[in-house]
Amino acid sequence: MLDPMRLFPSEPTARAIAEKLYDTVRDLPLISPHGHTDPAWFAKDEAFPNPAALFIQPDHYIFRMLYSQGITLESLGIPQNNGKQQADPREVWRIFAKHYYLFRGTPTRLWFDYAMQENFGLKDRLTPENADEYYEILSKKLETPEFRPRALFEKFNIEVLSTTDSPLDSLEHHIAIRESGWKGRVLPTFRPDSVIDAEFKGFIQNIENLGAMTHESIVSYKGYLNALRKRRDYFISLGATATDHGHLTAMTADLDPGAAEALYQRILSGKSNPEEQQLFQAQMLTEMAGMSNDDGLTMQIHPGSIRNHNKQVYEKFGRDKGADIPSPTEYVRSLRPLLSKYGNSTKFNLILFTLDESTFSRELAPLAGHYPVLRLGPPWWFHDSPEGMMRFRETATETAGFYNTVGFNDDTRAFLSIPSRHDVARRVDCAFLGRMVAEHRLDEDEAFEVVQDLTVNLVKKAYKL
Amino acid sequence: MLDPMRLFPSEPTARAIAEKLYDTVRDLPLISPHGHTDPAWFAKDEAFPNPAALFIQPDHYIFRMLYSQGITLESLGIPQNNGKQQADPREVWRIFAKHYYLFRGTPTRLWFDYAMQENFGLKDRLTPENADEYYEILSKKLETPEFRPRALFEKFNIEVLSTTDSPLDSLEHHIAIRESGWKGRVLPTFRPDSVIDAEFKGFIQNIENLGAMTHESIVSYKGYLNALRKRRDYFISLGATATDHGHLTAMTADLDPGAAEALYQRILSGKSNPEEQQLFQAQMLTEMAGMSNDDGLTMQIHPGSIRNHNKQVYEKFGRDKGADIPSPTEYVRSLRPLLSKYGNSTKFNLILFTLDESTFSRELAPLAGHYPVLRLGPPWWFHDSPEGMMRFRETATETAGFYNTVGFNDDTRAFLSIPSRHDVARRVDCAFLGRMVAEHRLDEDEAFEVVQDLTVNLVKKAYKL
Amino acid sequence: MLDPMRLFPSEPTARAIAEKLYDTVRDLPLISPHGHTDPAWFAKDEAFPNPAALFIQPDHYIFRMLYSQGITLESLGIPQNNGKQQADPREVWRIFAKHYYLFRGTPTRLWFDYAMQENFGLKDRLTPENADEYYEILSKKLETPEFRPRALFEKFNIEVLSTTDSPLDSLEHHIAIRESGWKGRVLPTFRPDSVIDAEFKGFIQNIENLGAMTHESIVSYKGYLNALRKRRDYFISLGATATDHGHLTAMTADLDPGAAEALYQRILSGKSNPEEQQLFQAQMLTEMAGMSNDDGLTMQIHPGSIRNHNKQVYEKFGRDKGADIPSPTEYVRSLRPLLSKYGNSTKFNLILFTLDESTFSRELAPLAGHYPVLRLGPPWWFHDSPEGMMRFRETATETAGFYNTVGFNDDTRAFLSIPSRHDVARRVDCAFLGRMVAEHRLDEDEAFEVVQDLTVNLVKKAYKL
Repeated sequence: MLDPMRLFPSEPTARAIAEKLYDTVRDLPLISPHGHTDPAWFAKDEAFPNPAALFIQPDHYIFRMLYSQGITLESLGIPQNNGKQQADPREVWRIFAKHYYLFRGTPTRLWFDYAMQENFGLKDRLTPENADEYYEILSKKLETPEFRPRALFEKFNIEVLSTTDSPLDSLEHHIAIRESGWKGRVLPTFRPDSVIDAEFKGFIQNIENLGAMTHESIVSYKGYLNALRKRRDYFISLGATATDHGHLTAMTADLDPGAAEALYQRILSGKSNPEEQQLFQAQMLTEMAGMSNDDGLTMQIHPGSIRNHNKQVYEKFGRDKGADIPSPTEYVRSLRPLLSKYGNSTKFNLILFTLDESTFSRELAPLAGHYPVLRLGPPWWFHDSPEGMMRFRETATETAGFYNTVGFNDDTRAFLSIPSRHDVARRVDCAFLGRMVAEHRLDEDEAFEVVQDLTVNLVKKAYKL
Repeated sequence: MLDPMRLFPSEPTARAIAEKLYDTVRDLPLISPHGHTDPAWFAKDEAFPNPAALFIQPDHYIFRMLYSQGITLESLGIPQNNGKQQADPREVWRIFAKHYYLFRGTPTRLWFDYAMQENFGLKDRLTPENADEYYEILSKKLETPEFRPRALFEKFNIEVLSTTDSPLDSLEHHIAIRESGWKGRVLPTFRPDSVIDAEFKGFIQNIENLGAMTHESIVSYKGYLNALRKRRDYFISLGATATDHGHLTAMTADLDPGAAEALYQRILSGKSNPEEQQLFQAQMLTEMAGMSNDDGLTMQIHPGSIRNHNKQVYEKFGRDKGADIPSPTEYVRSLRPLLSKYGNSTKFNLILFTLDESTFSRELAPLAGHYPVLRLGPPWWFHDSPEGMMRFRETATETAGFYNTVGFNDDTRAFLSIPSRHDVARRVDCAFLGRMVAEHRLDEDEAFEVVQDLTVNLVKKAYKL
Repeated sequence: MLDPMRLFPSEPTARAIAEKLYDTVRDLPLISPHGHTDPAWFAKDEAFPNPAALFIQPDHYIFRMLYSQGITLESLGIPQNNGKQQADPREVWRIFAKHYYLFRGTPTRLWFDYAMQENFGLKDRLTPENADEYYEILSKKLETPEFRPRALFEKFNIEVLSTTDSPLDSLEHHIAIRESGWKGRVLPTFRPDSVIDAEFKGFIQNIENLGAMTHESIVSYKGYLNALRKRRDYFISLGATATDHGHLTAMTADLDPGAAEALYQRILSGKSNPEEQQLFQAQMLTEMAGMSNDDGLTMQIHPGSIRNHNKQVYEKFGRDKGADIPSPTEYVRSLRPLLSKYGNSTKFNLILFTLDESTFSRELAPLAGHYPVLRLGPPWWFHDSPEGMMRFRETATETAGFYNTVGFNDDTRAFLSIPSRHDVARRVDCAFLGRMVAEHRLDEDEAFEVVQDLTVNLVKKAYKL
């Protein structure tokens, strides 16, 4: 099913170079500095329940495509807000198999085939005919010790895996992992949306909890910022090396102290309007950059997603159901307040992501090719496809070079897809470098260095791992 | 002149696969669900007057390029608003031949060469030297029965051809075609701009005519909507399966009934301002989606063209003179009102087009890869080129797959270019699939299925043909 | 170091065609109609001081990349506003050599390697190990007569080189070149930002100087316009064939005479606000187009750069320090006032540039493929890379053809990089044409014509050289 030459250029000269490059990175450990796996998996090390729960229900790439073709989310057993989740997992699996053709040409296809072959030894394409047999095989394997989370973590050769966590999280699972004596390195990431985005569910209560957890008086802006600092320190004490910020836009602000305090009071009053809420988020990006300048946490900004675009789906099924849609995103003017203050810093790394690929050549590569603090994150979300990764290299490298980028993020909740995602990224980088060498734009000895840097060195450096 | 391998990758492995794929679709019937041919041609079946009138004067791709290089529209015999059209068609043809080099690298070149060779047996490139000879040959052929519209329709192996028609059109030519006993399937498409766009020439009178035709009282919004429903039914009775909507933006609205009625009254008063007119168009897109949800007509939205950008050309020559220019187009926020109401419907298909290619990966593929009602139309207008089609596949497939797309539209007034346009589209799809197979991202057996789907099955399904 | 096949497709068929095409243009003279070399170099013909001053300190591509990785501008000897410039050029060179790996995959790498090999005979890649040796070799060569500006100009086979000059410039160096008897053709270009952009340093004084130089009373708008006309005539008398306009946006306006006069008075009062200043610039683009319509100077518009984005760098080091960042740029609505007045003119050429590549297929190619006055400038600034040039051909050719483009601009202050930049452009055009021929989209005999046109004929025609 998996050809050893997959994703390499079909032109033999470039392919041969790509293959040689790939040979040197194929077996390197996986470094996963940004993702959404559940730390409880590694703390508890329980078996995954069934193939549908492992592959389909947590993977919005999969169920959004099925939904787009008229398959109901109910029939796929997607959990509903009212607690219902009515679907026989075996039937869910059959639906997936029947519609597996929909994924032709998509990265999901590459990831899933890889997981089947490499993890389960299943070498034929999933079809309606073999669906039941595959379900049986997978179910049985998932019950074995070799398919427990920690065993898979080790089998996948993961050197480090970062999760994404609320500042209000006790990080109990991270503590449990550390205390368990297991050697797997699983790190928290500080993601403060719940106490910065006034539209977040339970926002005011969240801030009050933040104050309570840190013994800071959150009635003042200063106390609120101190509380955040304390939680960052707590995350750092458990190994965190990065923060992450998911905002609607890349807008930043740098208000004077009085204006910032007044704005915070409006926000805290619960009576703020959308403009004030957006300004507050903008101000907080700059504050967070300031804290990173102090404590060294790598800062990630993920802007541009319009969340929960489908009202009916949101009302019935809640967040993260494949209905977040990218929107045009402006960086140059938006980031200026933050960059005026911290752009020339070399004390921390600020990694920018985008869902608007037109910004790579126009805004992001020119910014990252100048400001010392900036680095470019890898293609995000819908663009973590072979074509998307290639477009990233083709539009960013010429202006930002390789060394203002930070390697790959798998960015997934779908644990079984992690090795495959890294494999795709490595292959695409080798394909790009193979072409560069074949076109005599880069010497071959350099390409061997670059591919090591892209796979390992730049990630470790950018995320301080 | 036409190489059998044209448009396939030059790399031999990918080329060989592309060629094999193409062999299976080359001779399939043409399905043309969206275009601008004149139904009168097929009703009357009269000879086309001369080569210039057939190839040059109706083809804005051709005369806009000539105009851009300083050739006057008068000298090309483009009809003027004052009724004048002064140009010897033979001289027009000579001008075209003399400047044929301007079309190097453009799709026009591919289309024209194909028409010359495949329809007229002329195997040398058009030059100033052979222009007169070619004119003679073409003129003579056009007088023969084999070059009448119906004979060409059959020779082209067109299975179905949709035209674009005003709701005020009696559809007399469509009726005549049906009553003639001729087997050619020519269908109307419901395009209501003339009674929805308040800037349309004669707008108020158009609405009054709409009322008169349907015996509905258009003084109320309800009566206006009923009148539109009746005309849709009339179109359906004559075979229509789709509507088409050409708006400046993709803006939609979902006003409450009182606000919608009040807005309609403003519009009907003739005193509305541009904002009200735009809001009315936005509201009408949602109304039209509702009607499609009831009657099943496939709905097409073509937004983003700034019409008649060149004031001097418009004043002298009128509409459709190559001076419509694309503009940045936003979909995610604009479509939300409509999608909130009908986005989860599986009762009709809503096909989105764009002139802003940056939206494919950012907005359109993510939307179409989620909402059941949505499908992506093929590259439109300036982008129906080999490069444009390839960019479409490369940016849309990864997120929307193949199965949220709808095959090809030739979208033309230039009847003789139809087979060539389909040929180019089929070749580019084969080139894309050939590369995917050569890079082991798709199995060869699947590619054979996909190319059939892209050429025939998806079109028929999307347009209910 | 330089492979003869560099930048050509690795696929042998396309490569062979590209190579044959390149053979016919490799040795053609360089035509450089837009750039930023210093006319004093050619007037005085003095030796360049040292390798760092020649290669590093004037090249913002180089020092911005180094800066982005934490290397201070001070350590690179970039001149400071306070007059300081503290760095041993040998040490600057070492820093560059040590970080030369940062330029992998960037055009800078291609340009620099070419200059080393072709001009200095240095065939090994620059490394920390050979840095000192190379510095010595370069230093010695720079002292020889063969490396004086005029000798290099001749060695580079430059047929014509345009500089960029203020209307307030006496053009003394241009006069000196003419009077020297040297045959090198160096022409001024009229760039009036300093008397049009109210934010320009010394703006009011500049206008007063303009009046004094021309004996026009600049207290009235009419006098101001007359003064500009006189300076254009002066530039023309010294060989100028073009103007250049660097604006934040592509906005144009066409005010009635009274409004224009009133706006000018506001601007001249020094009390204008940013909106008024922008409107004035917009109005002036249309006025300049009118003057070009009279005097025939080719007009270039370079919009979209946000200048001096990095406040700290600007305050310490001033303009042009690699901190100009592109921003989204709209053309279709912005240019309409100007195009309504002069778009149908065939009396001058208006060349549009962009830093926003999404506009090529969406706006610029459709505009240039229609309006007689318009032509598309080559990829500008960050996009004058192999990938950027290829994207330009791929997105512009299908709609604008080759003949609405104007060949290559090297657009540089880095004199030694000029031959290399032209070489890269010629190779990429050959690569594009080679692929077109290999895919049978263009006949081989035509490709030979096109590559001549792109290299020589279109440039001369567009810039009236």
